[in-house]
Amino acid sequence: MTSAATIAKTPAPPYYAVIFTSQRTDFDQGYGQMAERMIALVFQMPGFLKVESVRNTDGLGITVSYWQSEDAIRNWKAHSEHRIA
Amino acid sequence: MTSAATIAKTPAPPYYAVIFTSQRTDFDQGYGQMAERMIALVFQMPGFLKVESVRNTDGLGITVSYWQSEDAIRNWKAHSEHRIA
Repeated sequence: MTSAATIAKTPAPPYYAVIFTSQRTDFDQGYGQMAERMIALVFQMPGFLKVESVRNTDGLGITVSYWQSEDAIRNWKAHSEHRIA
Repeated sequence: MTSAATIAKTPAPPYYAVIFTSQRTDFDQGYGQMAERMIALVFQMPGFLKVESVRNTDGLGITVSYWQSEDAIRNWKAHSEHRIA
């Protein structure tokens, strides 16, 4: 049932997840580039564990990132707003 | 960017999420039926808010259910293990 390449192996709890749901449309041309930059950034962040991302053929996507602590998430959000938005 | 039919409208925090990631294979014939029963059940549970579910063409799926409280999640898990597993 599991696929090592795609399903995150998470450590023993507690750990923390950020869920991002999005509907891709024909009009968000810049979205793919921004998402790529965000994913490149996330791998470098302290406390980052794993990311899982699925998008279906209707363009609906769910991305879940897993973190060691809530502080790591706050730090990532502050950093990514500064760098990307 | 949003689609009312598919992206959950969640209330003001705090609320709680359960993330379920799965890789569908050719061998799990009973899986679809069990998933259908679980989704039918979840809508009846106290404290249930919304569910989002995406599966891509590789069979990788992420389902996120949102709940009013951790107690509601515990109750749902106890109930669903009893009824389904």
